[in-house]
Amino acid sequence: MAHAVQASIGDSEFDRDTAVTPRAPGVYDAHLSEGWTIIAAVNGGYLLALLGRALAHTLPHSDPFSVSAHYLSASQPGPAVIRTETIRTGRTLSTGQASLVQYEQDGTEVERIRVLATYGDLDQLSDEVRTAATPPELPAYESCVSPSDAPAPPVTGSSAILERLTLRLDPATVGWALGAPSGKGEMRGWFSLADGRDADPLSLLLTVDALPPTSFDLGLNGWTPTVELTTHIRCRPAPGPLRVAIRTRNLAGGFLEEDAEVWDSRDRLVAQSRQLAKAPR
Amino acid sequence: MAHAVQASIGDSEFDRDTAVTPRAPGVYDAHLSEGWTIIAAVNGGYLLALLGRALAHTLPHSDPFSVSAHYLSASQPGPAVIRTETIRTGRTLSTGQASLVQYEQDGTEVERIRVLATYGDLDQLSDEVRTAATPPELPAYESCVSPSDAPAPPVTGSSAILERLTLRLDPATVGWALGAPSGKGEMRGWFSLADGRDADPLSLLLTVDALPPTSFDLGLNGWTPTVELTTHIRCRPAPGPLRVAIRTRNLAGGFLEEDAEVWDSRDRLVAQSRQLAKAPR
Repeated sequence: MAHAVQASIGDSEFDRDTAVTPRAPGVYDAHLSEGWTIIAAVNGGYLLALLGRALAHTLPHSDPFSVSAHYLSASQPGPAVIRTETIRTGRTLSTGQASLVQYEQDGTEVERIRVLATYGDLDQLSDEVRTAATPPELPAYESCVSPSDAPAPPVTGSSAILERLTLRLDPATVGWALGAPSGKGEMRGWFSLADGRDADPLSLLLTVDALPPTSFDLGLNGWTPTVELTTHIRCRPAPGPLRVAIRTRNLAGGFLEEDAEVWDSRDRLVAQSRQLAKAPR
Repeated sequence: MAHAVQASIGDSEFDRDTAVTPRAPGVYDAHLSEGWTIIAAVNGGYLLALLGRALAHTLPHSDPFSVSAHYLSASQPGPAVIRTETIRTGRTLSTGQASLVQYEQDGTEVERIRVLATYGDLDQLSDEVRTAATPPELPAYESCVSPSDAPAPPVTGSSAILERLTLRLDPATVGWALGAPSGKGEMRGWFSLADGRDADPLSLLLTVDALPPTSFDLGLNGWTPTVELTTHIRCRPAPGPLRVAIRTRNLAGGFLEEDAEVWDSRDRLVAQSRQLAKAPR
């Protein structure tokens, strides 16, 4: 895709594809776009951004601080309904719940994902930072590789989402594309939306689940369905490419965790996430 | 407290104090015990265990795999009601929701905590383990120190919970008790229930939130209220003392995360948790 003009926050494909339309108080119509599918499924981070936008409408605060999602069934591109509930509102924080459902041909409602989330106002946070965390050591942008450069992905099928992202992966974490995974369970790279839209708290909910799974780097091919994914947004991201580092330390009993960190161009840790996923068989 | 006879899983103070009594389908009466308070508040991990037990009754699976909790208001010792909902049941996993409420003197209902949780059967998991995680390096049990040995805690008030736990903290992480915090944001120690009851998945929900807060080791005194706490139980713990390691990497904008790992006597990572908390002022 060529992007003659850089898209902006509020006027971009991501914003249009995560738009929600109020249908009743706290209830929103949404359309899950084909554009954010990976293999046959709708990307879990894209779903999170949709639910996050619905909650930003419902709650008195607009920025997700902490979003906990349990994934129930695989979403399909097409219409969906998001129901939200305000659980508690406070001066600095408010908490809500959201649920995304779709309908089978016979009209049966199927819930896809449910989240609890606490919202606040990132602009009201102090600038105080005392961190032992350091940004991931990534090769320079131009030394990193695009997933589309890979000779063959370890899974087949449509990956429409890759056309909407500009990913540049650390060569040290893409050995799997050449049949030589490192075995470390790491994935690192530069992340931008392909149309140049800058990051905001909602797009960070996409970013934490947008890189190839660490299971590829462990030498495991196939689908890694998310069971649970919690994301903490720690500050509003500055413009520019993000750096994402994901790590799996414990694969046991058929499950693995994936810890992701997202850093912005000002070297600030803007998001932390952890998911529990089923390991490929 | 002297414990002439070791308590057992199902017949211990922890089990009695986390008991729930069915009142209607999916609704349970509970009593928040004075015994698990820290300062004036009921411990957040104890609350999680109560909600976890209610969900184990409601759902077809009995072991918490992933529990995501948002804390809404400070619980008080006394009666409480837990309402649960079955969201999805599957062959290997089921997902539910639970909410704990208390009542003010005028009858007003106040929600304290809400959780989403996915349950399964830990005994059905394979023994396969491929982990890069290593147990925390802790001094020998007898070289670690009890919080009651500390000359003065950085916060005052009742700490009834400490009578029910046998904690032995790594001296490297208790400098705060002597006015010399390390500044690293770490807390490590050995953990057992004081009556000798062995750990099970429900007591692990207590364990992840039972050590002194890492903020003490950062030199911050005072209350660190939890906003969100997600715990993944990775395998059924073996008998014997547990090792717990907690770390804060990023204190920013008045919030901090606490990552906890719990290891059992067979050197297995049995629980991982992360919480987002408000930093003391």
